[in-house]
Amino acid sequence: MRLRRSRFAWLAVSLLCTGCSVTPALVDPADPLPSWREGAAKQSIVAFIDASTSPRMAGWIPPAERIAVFDHDGTLIVEEPLLVQEAFIYWRIRQLAAANPQWVGEPPFSAVLEGDYAGLKKAGLRALSPLMDAAQSGMHQEAFQLLVRQFLAEVELPVYGRRAARLVYQPMIELIELLHARDFRVFIVSGGGTEFIRGLAESVYGIPRERVIGSSMKARVQEQDGVVHVMRRAGIARLNVGKNKVQSIQERIGRRPALAVGNADGDREMLHYAGRSIVLKHDDATREAAYARSSERLLAEANSSGWITVSMANDFLRVFPRGVAQAGDASGDGVR
Amino acid sequence: MRLRRSRFAWLAVSLLCTGCSVTPALVDPADPLPSWREGAAKQSIVAFIDASTSPRMAGWIPPAERIAVFDHDGTLIVEEPLLVQEAFIYWRIRQLAAANPQWVGEPPFSAVLEGDYAGLKKAGLRALSPLMDAAQSGMHQEAFQLLVRQFLAEVELPVYGRRAARLVYQPMIELIELLHARDFRVFIVSGGGTEFIRGLAESVYGIPRERVIGSSMKARVQEQDGVVHVMRRAGIARLNVGKNKVQSIQERIGRRPALAVGNADGDREMLHYAGRSIVLKHDDATREAAYARSSERLLAEANSSGWITVSMANDFLRVFPRGVAQAGDASGDGVR
Repeated sequence: MRLRRSRFAWLAVSLLCTGCSVTPALVDPADPLPSWREGAAKQSIVAFIDASTSPRMAGWIPPAERIAVFDHDGTLIVEEPLLVQEAFIYWRIRQLAAANPQWVGEPPFSAVLEGDYAGLKKAGLRALSPLMDAAQSGMHQEAFQLLVRQFLAEVELPVYGRRAARLVYQPMIELIELLHARDFRVFIVSGGGTEFIRGLAESVYGIPRERVIGSSMKARVQEQDGVVHVMRRAGIARLNVGKNKVQSIQERIGRRPALAVGNADGDREMLHYAGRSIVLKHDDATREAAYARSSERLLAEANSSGWITVSMANDFLRVFPRGVAQAGDASGDGVR
Repeated sequence: MRLRRSRFAWLAVSLLCTGCSVTPALVDPADPLPSWREGAAKQSIVAFIDASTSPRMAGWIPPAERIAVFDHDGTLIVEEPLLVQEAFIYWRIRQLAAANPQWVGEPPFSAVLEGDYAGLKKAGLRALSPLMDAAQSGMHQEAFQLLVRQFLAEVELPVYGRRAARLVYQPMIELIELLHARDFRVFIVSGGGTEFIRGLAESVYGIPRERVIGSSMKARVQEQDGVVHVMRRAGIARLNVGKNKVQSIQERIGRRPALAVGNADGDREMLHYAGRSIVLKHDDATREAAYARSSERLLAEANSSGWITVSMANDFLRVFPRGVAQAGDASGDGVR
């Protein structure tokens, strides 16, 4: 989980069309990044990928070393004002409320039942650990995976009024597809829960489960009559932010990433660790949200570090997948 | 590291030909497992792979779920009487001895300098942690990777008198190649050190580094002037044996393996966790070694658990790669 104390700000996105189907683009050789606006950022990204995959160029990277890592919340999917995983936790708490009548009037449970997202956000996720424990532990991993899948398939998130798969950034989906087409292995390296993100990884991002590296709750391996299960327990085992992102990349991937993409201060060590880095700037109050909270240091270091800065307002031609209407978008195609 | 107190027993393998090149076999559609002797074990393995990759058969496994996990020491490579990683540690200690004259006469360092492998084995690896710390910590991960690569490329192991790449089991290499050809993702799940095994993974097993899941030493992420390194520290962070193998599979892969292969009691939870399991029995004193120590429980459970038991003596037509002579092998082809 990203831990952050932040003021509550509603997303300034029009949510007009929650029933249309989302059709991710295929890689078009003429323009592999159609949702990116022509400009310095797009040019730098395409130049990096072209150089790293052209054997005769100085920047060539052998296929074995083509590792790309993406942060999740705020880099691939909206995080303001509500993390998708927060919405999952609140949904699960409401499911469990009937069997837990004592939760009425008992914070932080009462805040969920009253829909006080602003108050919950203000308290910060660490203070809300009773919610995480109640919603996400005390069951086998398989049961948890089913819950996550049900939530992602069926539930429209509060605040946004759409399902999670419609809150991803279409330009980033295209970038992942382009990297895959050029034999990069793409990993998600997130402070969010590994098992939660896995619910989106294969179907939405085309990233296999084993390439999701996130935070994890404690667990216990149980064996009965030769049947083995992993039981989720209360409490966070490992919070995958900051330096821990670098350590988990070393442990799980075993090489410096050729490319890293992030948007928040919890990504800065990972971005310094990678060969080439991209920072996404949330500066689009019309189509998504404008905030720099928890990313001040990252943005301040971007230029001197030679990172590619991507402005959502200027470099994203469309923000969300086709089928999701955007602000100022009469046709539904989302071209501003 | 596999921790085990065991008596010292010399390998009864003739080591005739350490200079020949090792040429791994390619998958031959007529017989994808040429180093396996025809029989029940080979038949069961081929039947499992055929069924799991034939869409019309009951045992079909969707490609996304084709995960195979292999233990390392004793499953892919010899472990008796000396683990390959033990040999690496001893080699490194001898390298460092000139700068550490106090080691003469100071156990366990003195045992290494005197070549007393029997005494070292008897002490058990946990007791030998000063050796592990001295040989494997206090350097950046990149520097450690270089050391491992140098050792594997240049050093003939004591006892065996060959390099590590010549101590792998050819039938298991063929099984990995067959699984890869059938769209399985193959992982090594070992009690050995992750970074050490990675030195062999890509070149010898054709398994990318990120699919090696082993034990790890403590580490610290260091940052100076925007340059980030992972420094190896003294002490084991996590010993990947027994239930920990199941937990690391859950954390790092996120699904129950379709196939697991192991040889020791530290693999039993992993074998119970997988859909189908294979146990390798070390019963070949002529070509490799005969021992059941640390695998009594595993072997006792194999039949009732429906696991495929592979006898090295009966089911391996050849043990080591071509170019490595075997006992009773006049031609050098290793057919017994």
